[in-house]
Amino acid sequence: MRPFTYCNPTKICFGSGTAGTVGAEVAAAGMRNVLLVYGKSSIKRNGVYDAVTASLKAAGVAWTEWPGVSANPLLSQVQGGIALAREAKVDGILAVGGGSVIDASKAIAMGVPAACDVWDFYMGAAAPQAALPVAVVLTLPATGSEMNGGTVVTHDETREKRAVINPTLHPRFSILDPEVTRSVPPDYVAYSASDAISHTIESYLTRAPGFFPVQDGYAEGVVRAIMAATERILADPGDVEARGAMMWAATLAWNFLGSSGVGAWVTAAHTLEHPLSGLFDVAHGAGLAVVGPAWMVWESRRRTDRIAAFARRMMDVRIDDDAAAAAEGIARFRAWLKKIGNPVTLGECGVTPGQIPEIARHAAILAKAWGTGEEYTAEVCAEILGVFM
Amino acid sequence: MRPFTYCNPTKICFGSGTAGTVGAEVAAAGMRNVLLVYGKSSIKRNGVYDAVTASLKAAGVAWTEWPGVSANPLLSQVQGGIALAREAKVDGILAVGGGSVIDASKAIAMGVPAACDVWDFYMGAAAPQAALPVAVVLTLPATGSEMNGGTVVTHDETREKRAVINPTLHPRFSILDPEVTRSVPPDYVAYSASDAISHTIESYLTRAPGFFPVQDGYAEGVVRAIMAATERILADPGDVEARGAMMWAATLAWNFLGSSGVGAWVTAAHTLEHPLSGLFDVAHGAGLAVVGPAWMVWESRRRTDRIAAFARRMMDVRIDDDAAAAAEGIARFRAWLKKIGNPVTLGECGVTPGQIPEIARHAAILAKAWGTGEEYTAEVCAEILGVFM
Repeated sequence: MRPFTYCNPTKICFGSGTAGTVGAEVAAAGMRNVLLVYGKSSIKRNGVYDAVTASLKAAGVAWTEWPGVSANPLLSQVQGGIALAREAKVDGILAVGGGSVIDASKAIAMGVPAACDVWDFYMGAAAPQAALPVAVVLTLPATGSEMNGGTVVTHDETREKRAVINPTLHPRFSILDPEVTRSVPPDYVAYSASDAISHTIESYLTRAPGFFPVQDGYAEGVVRAIMAATERILADPGDVEARGAMMWAATLAWNFLGSSGVGAWVTAAHTLEHPLSGLFDVAHGAGLAVVGPAWMVWESRRRTDRIAAFARRMMDVRIDDDAAAAAEGIARFRAWLKKIGNPVTLGECGVTPGQIPEIARHAAILAKAWGTGEEYTAEVCAEILGVFM
Repeated sequence: MRPFTYCNPTKICFGSGTAGTVGAEVAAAGMRNVLLVYGKSSIKRNGVYDAVTASLKAAGVAWTEWPGVSANPLLSQVQGGIALAREAKVDGILAVGGGSVIDASKAIAMGVPAACDVWDFYMGAAAPQAALPVAVVLTLPATGSEMNGGTVVTHDETREKRAVINPTLHPRFSILDPEVTRSVPPDYVAYSASDAISHTIESYLTRAPGFFPVQDGYAEGVVRAIMAATERILADPGDVEARGAMMWAATLAWNFLGSSGVGAWVTAAHTLEHPLSGLFDVAHGAGLAVVGPAWMVWESRRRTDRIAAFARRMMDVRIDDDAAAAAEGIARFRAWLKKIGNPVTLGECGVTPGQIPEIARHAAILAKAWGTGEEYTAEVCAEILGVFM
């Protein structure tokens, strides 16, 4: 194992009906006047908006609403939220939504007390020193943002999709109520599974060699749990037991506990996917279902042993030869992603071969910014993106 | 899954050489004058005492020493520490040791600001409302106390061994430096493995039926990691890589993350073991190696499916019939515990058949106090304890 520090103070409140406790939790965390951030109209259709606002009212918590956050949240949405939060003098941000809403809420939370423009944090020109407290009612399990200090935002004009990871951004608490995910449609169930699996396996596949039985076992358990829960949800969308297991698995997939101690690793699939969803408004998990396996094909030339381990321990491949096992594991993974409803070619995402160079150019810039590796030139990124055209 | 809340704010600092950073971490946590709690002379022999005190000195942190905490720490040792901490007006407790030292430190931390006697907390007559901050340099991985809010203390006269679990008792930070465990001798390596595995499997074996793929995968990964690391350490005591993996696995075994969401479960093996080590000064892990499998034999009559799952997923048993698989799994587990150096009969712990009723009487009282189950009468406890006499 390699040196690490780990601290994750986010309180998790899990259970059917916990969405109705949000007012009491917000008040207990010392917030009296929050910015209520959400997305499109789904929380108004499925009753979550009513449950949350009734709970806030009952607890005597005032709120100002900032709706309309999109998938792949935009900088302009964040900047508007910051202006409104300052005007309303809120003392906290309440995110009711999935990863996009939570990420935008964290951006607003660090933007309010900041002297610089919030985009400076994403470009690495400054680091946040403080943030308003963030509380979460999770409605779509996938990104893990509900239990980590990360946020990803897209610039409106340049379409750059950038991340900040900072300890000030851990939510104070996150409410995981499986009931509120009942209405998540099958396509988004599939995208969520793809995203959460990708979070789990990137460190598993790209870490340096070594003895990591704790981390390997953790990753294997989380991936198997996501697969089992996803299959049950798609067979019966009303299976709240499976909805709950998926919610918890996706949270544990990206709270950085499983990768603690493995040393350096890279988010290669995410590096390739961010420009795709940033430029084309493809759902993030859908994009990962295409570029993740494509990257694994390319990667299996040099990290054959790790992809073979993935194949054997997560995809039940029983082949002794590493290269053959890796190839079979990728094929099974891709078949599974397709079976549950993900696109598995760029074409299915509406991308034409002529658009690959532009995605690749952005990916190469991101690879530099994130330290994914010097080998990820625009040419190499284009080669990987072309694997499953 | 069942409803739960989970919050674990303890900061983990893992890595070779991190023991030397304790002074800076203590100061960063706002402590200026600590009670330095440790056990017998081992930390003076292996250099840990020197490294810690040099680090405190360099950081300008004052300290008062409270050495001599024993395995199965005694109430009198806690009460002496409380008196000294009050006299020295310390603002925090620094535990340098294993679970016993950490547990005694937590007891002192909650005892200092308390109006009642600290034993009242253990007897359930009062609940701690506040505690001094606790910091940890872990020297023996086993109990998980370094990343949870639990403490276990034994009453000097009655020999009752009781626990308190309270959120005020989470350490502020815990330093996990694998180098300091290099000198842990083989017998204690074996006891640690037995203890940490027991922590992981009690919820796995006694939870209600349901769909728990996250928790099952977590437990299976942790147990496999402990077994792999233990075998490497015993083959080469200087294998710091394996020492580190064991340290992290034991911490994750009992930070209550893996059992979150499984609903009610009981610590049956611990219920039976506590009186054994409380009355006879048997090492806790050694006692668990005897009574754990004995309890599993008894339990396999009613929770056959769970013990069969343990057998197949952790002990690599390939038998279709549940009862036969369970029996084979227990046999393999016991053989492994023996192979690594644990006692596997009460006789090896110095207990005679005539002493079983007294242990059983205490176990039945504890079963009532902990809610282990009404079926754990003194007669039943005696029956279980007698399985491997």
